[in-house]
Amino acid sequence: MRRDIFTEDHEAFRQLAREYIEKEVVPRYPDWEKAGRMPREVFEKLGSLGLLGTAIPEEYGGGGVRDYRYNMVLQEESYRAQVTLSTVRTQIDVILPYFLEYANAEQRDRWFPGLANGTLLTAIGMTEPGTGSDLAGMRTTAVRDGDEYIINGGKTFITGGLLADLVIVCARTSTDPDNRRAGLTLIVVESGRPGFTKGRILDKMGCKVQDTVELHFDNVRVPVTNRLGEEGAAFSYLGHNLAQERITVATGSVAQAHAAIAATIDYVKERKVFGQAVAGFQNTKFELAAMSAEVEAAQAMLDRAVMELVENRLSAPDAARTKLFCTEVQARVVDRCLQLFGGYGYMMEYPIARLYTDARVARIYAGTSEVMKTIIAKDLGLR
Amino acid sequence: MRRDIFTEDHEAFRQLAREYIEKEVVPRYPDWEKAGRMPREVFEKLGSLGLLGTAIPEEYGGGGVRDYRYNMVLQEESYRAQVTLSTVRTQIDVILPYFLEYANAEQRDRWFPGLANGTLLTAIGMTEPGTGSDLAGMRTTAVRDGDEYIINGGKTFITGGLLADLVIVCARTSTDPDNRRAGLTLIVVESGRPGFTKGRILDKMGCKVQDTVELHFDNVRVPVTNRLGEEGAAFSYLGHNLAQERITVATGSVAQAHAAIAATIDYVKERKVFGQAVAGFQNTKFELAAMSAEVEAAQAMLDRAVMELVENRLSAPDAARTKLFCTEVQARVVDRCLQLFGGYGYMMEYPIARLYTDARVARIYAGTSEVMKTIIAKDLGLR
Amino acid sequence: MRRDIFTEDHEAFRQLAREYIEKEVVPRYPDWEKAGRMPREVFEKLGSLGLLGTAIPEEYGGGGVRDYRYNMVLQEESYRAQVTLSTVRTQIDVILPYFLEYANAEQRDRWFPGLANGTLLTAIGMTEPGTGSDLAGMRTTAVRDGDEYIINGGKTFITGGLLADLVIVCARTSTDPDNRRAGLTLIVVESGRPGFTKGRILDKMGCKVQDTVELHFDNVRVPVTNRLGEEGAAFSYLGHNLAQERITVATGSVAQAHAAIAATIDYVKERKVFGQAVAGFQNTKFELAAMSAEVEAAQAMLDRAVMELVENRLSAPDAARTKLFCTEVQARVVDRCLQLFGGYGYMMEYPIARLYTDARVARIYAGTSEVMKTIIAKDLGLR
Amino acid sequence: MRRDIFTEDHEAFRQLAREYIEKEVVPRYPDWEKAGRMPREVFEKLGSLGLLGTAIPEEYGGGGVRDYRYNMVLQEESYRAQVTLSTVRTQIDVILPYFLEYANAEQRDRWFPGLANGTLLTAIGMTEPGTGSDLAGMRTTAVRDGDEYIINGGKTFITGGLLADLVIVCARTSTDPDNRRAGLTLIVVESGRPGFTKGRILDKMGCKVQDTVELHFDNVRVPVTNRLGEEGAAFSYLGHNLAQERITVATGSVAQAHAAIAATIDYVKERKVFGQAVAGFQNTKFELAAMSAEVEAAQAMLDRAVMELVENRLSAPDAARTKLFCTEVQARVVDRCLQLFGGYGYMMEYPIARLYTDARVARIYAGTSEVMKTIIAKDLGLR
Repeated sequence: MRRDIFTEDHEAFRQLAREYIEKEVVPRYPDWEKAGRMPREVFEKLGSLGLLGTAIPEEYGGGGVRDYRYNMVLQEESYRAQVTLSTVRTQIDVILPYFLEYANAEQRDRWFPGLANGTLLTAIGMTEPGTGSDLAGMRTTAVRDGDEYIINGGKTFITGGLLADLVIVCARTSTDPDNRRAGLTLIVVESGRPGFTKGRILDKMGCKVQDTVELHFDNVRVPVTNRLGEEGAAFSYLGHNLAQERITVATGSVAQAHAAIAATIDYVKERKVFGQAVAGFQNTKFELAAMSAEVEAAQAMLDRAVMELVENRLSAPDAARTKLFCTEVQARVVDRCLQLFGGYGYMMEYPIARLYTDARVARIYAGTSEVMKTIIAKDLGLR
Repeated sequence: MRRDIFTEDHEAFRQLAREYIEKEVVPRYPDWEKAGRMPREVFEKLGSLGLLGTAIPEEYGGGGVRDYRYNMVLQEESYRAQVTLSTVRTQIDVILPYFLEYANAEQRDRWFPGLANGTLLTAIGMTEPGTGSDLAGMRTTAVRDGDEYIINGGKTFITGGLLADLVIVCARTSTDPDNRRAGLTLIVVESGRPGFTKGRILDKMGCKVQDTVELHFDNVRVPVTNRLGEEGAAFSYLGHNLAQERITVATGSVAQAHAAIAATIDYVKERKVFGQAVAGFQNTKFELAAMSAEVEAAQAMLDRAVMELVENRLSAPDAARTKLFCTEVQARVVDRCLQLFGGYGYMMEYPIARLYTDARVARIYAGTSEVMKTIIAKDLGLR
Repeated sequence: MRRDIFTEDHEAFRQLAREYIEKEVVPRYPDWEKAGRMPREVFEKLGSLGLLGTAIPEEYGGGGVRDYRYNMVLQEESYRAQVTLSTVRTQIDVILPYFLEYANAEQRDRWFPGLANGTLLTAIGMTEPGTGSDLAGMRTTAVRDGDEYIINGGKTFITGGLLADLVIVCARTSTDPDNRRAGLTLIVVESGRPGFTKGRILDKMGCKVQDTVELHFDNVRVPVTNRLGEEGAAFSYLGHNLAQERITVATGSVAQAHAAIAATIDYVKERKVFGQAVAGFQNTKFELAAMSAEVEAAQAMLDRAVMELVENRLSAPDAARTKLFCTEVQARVVDRCLQLFGGYGYMMEYPIARLYTDARVARIYAGTSEVMKTIIAKDLGLR
Repeated sequence: MRRDIFTEDHEAFRQLAREYIEKEVVPRYPDWEKAGRMPREVFEKLGSLGLLGTAIPEEYGGGGVRDYRYNMVLQEESYRAQVTLSTVRTQIDVILPYFLEYANAEQRDRWFPGLANGTLLTAIGMTEPGTGSDLAGMRTTAVRDGDEYIINGGKTFITGGLLADLVIVCARTSTDPDNRRAGLTLIVVESGRPGFTKGRILDKMGCKVQDTVELHFDNVRVPVTNRLGEEGAAFSYLGHNLAQERITVATGSVAQAHAAIAATIDYVKERKVFGQAVAGFQNTKFELAAMSAEVEAAQAMLDRAVMELVENRLSAPDAARTKLFCTEVQARVVDRCLQLFGGYGYMMEYPIARLYTDARVARIYAGTSEVMKTIIAKDLGLR
């Protein structure tokens, strides 16, 4: 279906992104997968092309336009080419909003130029071993000691953690047992601080180009000036930014579902069994037709949610609805597409296999489907 | 999710419709159900309120604004009140467009005033026993004899056929065996013409307020001036108008799904089992949350399609995608909702039971889901 | 798949049942549907043929063989002929076990002959308005007064209630608030006792041949000798007998799913669209093939459960698993079958429409799917 | 549910298998996964324990009892311990039956001792690049030249191909274009024959412990005495043996689904979120309960099919039904289980992630679900 949310500026940006991805990402992608991460140069190149910092104010070298649709275009173009920009996506979709919203003037001067030109890589540490989506259950502590915080604890499932120069750590600055939500604070920890170590790269089912690690903090001293926003305000910050984070997951899901369908259509047209193109079987037609309808529904829903986000009024329940639905569509679509590849679908050299293993995390991260349903149910007045 | 397709004019119309339905339809609805049809007076009343002929030019007493969103509002408001306007819907959503697009000046003078003020009731005869969605297989014939056509054949599943004053009959005026699609012509047959008889009311699973009958034509003579549009052009007319017809089915599906969820939320909040409101069970919450997400996706997709229709560029495949998806969402939603009513859901006095039996036809009429998939697959280039 | 649970005796019984149903039930069935109930003569005829009382001891005129497989055969044969024996089924599958297990010698003399020869019709009153599957929440009371109980309260969803001569009523004989399960007692109430009235026939979505009513008890006096089993023991009786009741529902579900598939295969072979038998489309083939696999799985599971029941060691959780799965298979199968009928599937004159509306109750009565899941989860050690 | 297909002999075998697997397989399994294959020693050890050759006649060192239930026990025990015996399974479940049924006396002498004691490893080459399940489309040729066949062509997706000492190659010995099925012949090719090369290990999504390779035949000369069975009979041999092969896939699917549920139950009991064990949420309970019912249905169906196989009367359509259903249950179950692990489910160190990626092939190999449906539909008389 025709979409109506993009302007000419977005389409120009799309063209630029497409060319970059085809020329610079696609040929190197297999190497990055083997290495288990993207190189730093990707960030720098994207920065120099102006693709990284669209949302950062112009005085720091950014594009000065905070508009999620640019991020959306970047994700769409990467999946269109059957690759993912992985940690780039995490940085601009998930982490950058925290900097944009909560960094003070001094911090902006310190960090924004590097964020815009791709020399500062970032990660965010929310999840802890054993807490999952239960943010209020975090146990990492940051104890004030003069002008410093002393951080102790550990984080897991940290995307981009290995290469990150800056990690936004969510830590407990107060331990009032009556209010598990208060007392959480965001603190930026630079790589290299004594006591801050990075664990092994976790062996994930998919998303192989993305380094996911554990982080350990053993009496790590960080100046108070590294605190992002107010002390004790992290829970509300997270609550607010999670809406966008969920939309970015949904964006990826819809784009990947489109990519899966496109790859499958190509395959079934060319592949012959029993003396006939697979595309000619009614089952093939009906499967792809049903998927096409579902994906268009997901796209329409997502585009509505994106416009709400752009207009700064996307509600948390609507973000949850969008993530829940779009990630489920993705799951159904990649599974059905893979089936049409037969045995080749099980071989990692076919992009559909990568789309399949990548997809499984979408219903889990940034809040599981179960957490989404809990949020929606509350919105429906069920208790 | 916030919708963005309605203007103040639509909302004013909505208010009018809502009041009329609550005051005039809801209290009488059980009687109509028992009778198996709505009375003619409903049309006249709607006509007098200006709710019937919004799309008819002002010189004939209509509203002069051809905008499907008014039809959409009318359907939404009826399902909001857990009733259906049934044959009214068929008349303005499905049949009126044929008159508006293909009636010549003389025909406009003859029929438009009655269509606008509700004194002329209509039906359309496409399906024949044994043809189903295979329009090209029609066997009813219209043979030219001087200034008249002589019609022979039969039609089935004719909504509103019992009360209709005018029936648009699709008949074969040429029997070239090499082109089953050419040679189909639309002819308006007035009730009362010799040889034109109406069969028994068919006993449907649901949609009880809607009279559905068989029509028989035994040497029925109709003046050539009753022909709607060009001879032999019906197949392309049907192809064009089916896109809108499918959107109207999707509109009903989404509105009914919303109605089902609303009724279920009310029920589970009030109903107690095992000493607790049903709303308090996690299963209840998760079921309704999942449905809510699905329905919002359907609504977003439908609203996109409606705007394409309003802007006169809705493609047949996109109409098919929308109908396919929205009717499937409806089916899943009414089934899951009914389950939450327990034994009461099986009792016809609960609206959910009516929503359930009404819903089953949506995946069938105006083209089955299988026909929708065929259309979509062709659009995907699969053959 | 070949089944292995029947002996020659069962097959002889099957032959007898088949002939009776084809000759005596099928031709009269439409009249019974219109009337909303089966006539008493059905019971008497079945009694005279020896089809009704197989489980009743020979000295009372029964067959003397308590073996659920005879009941299974009777249900299978009725659905094979696309009818249901309805209240007969309830009597022998659900109610008779209570008499067989808990009637004392005097009660056996009083009731067994009539139960065997079909002159005594029965019903059982468990559900109350507002309690549903929550048996412990019953509010009907039976207060001891000398040699009598005085019963007050109401029951709903009572299958066969209109024609029943005897109703087993589950009533509260003790109101200890600390133990809602204790204090429930089974008492047989004869039709005609002062204060015992039967309400209107409930308007159900399907199961039209089965009279379902509300029962009201207003100071109904019943002799203590009408008590079935021990005072206060009803909850454990119900718990025990519900396992068989659930297997009978599953039996019906599997038999109806088989019937739906058989009817659909016949239809798609004969019906032509787009110049081809519907059976020839790959979609038709794949749909029916998938259903066939599911139904065979359900049949295999059911047959295992039936043998466990026959060997008197069927556990409540396994009965729950069987009911849950078989009723869900039925639901999916009848829905998919109906779709293959196109518009005709929506017409009540086609048996598939009746199978569809009948099916919806299976996931609800004798314990909803949600209750089944609760039982199974407990068995899995989840709490 | 209680199963009834095993005797004491099977249970004794089960005990032996369980001990071996726990002691010898589980601790070494991670190494095998890293290596991408099991070592030859596994075969030898299994041979020495009498676990490998149960079906081989005693005179060759086997157990002399051809009874698939022993194979079933071996698979069940491996998945119970969350490992797979992989190529062992392929050898005894899939390949050995060809030797047992079609080897002549001389071949038995030559090969059976090694098959029984685990010193001869085998593979079977059916699939070719571009043919998939379309066996009749094979293009590898074996041209007779005196006492030898000269084989040319290639095979792909060959399980165990890397280590195999003997490969049963299915090749075309006649190229009658009118009968693509005739002219296929089985020929045993020893590793090491000139012109026979093995390609790279294919990078599969899962089943990492199983070496899957391509095989190339470039003028490979093999004595005619290596032919297994009659010339031109391979198609009917494959048709016959595929029924058992499909049951073995179903066996694995059901065993893996059980393993997934067991692992998940353990996890949700121990894991806490939002201050509560995950097991305590109603959603967790209902998900696992629904899966438990499905898996028991699959088990019952499979056990029926296995007994039919043991009694040598399993039909191809029933094998297809069983494979279709059991592999779909597996797919649904592992997906739902994984979801209950949250982020940990995406980490390959958790067995559920391995169960998930292993599972995806089950709906594809040994005939895709689409091929199964085609077989079943034919059995239903649909054409």
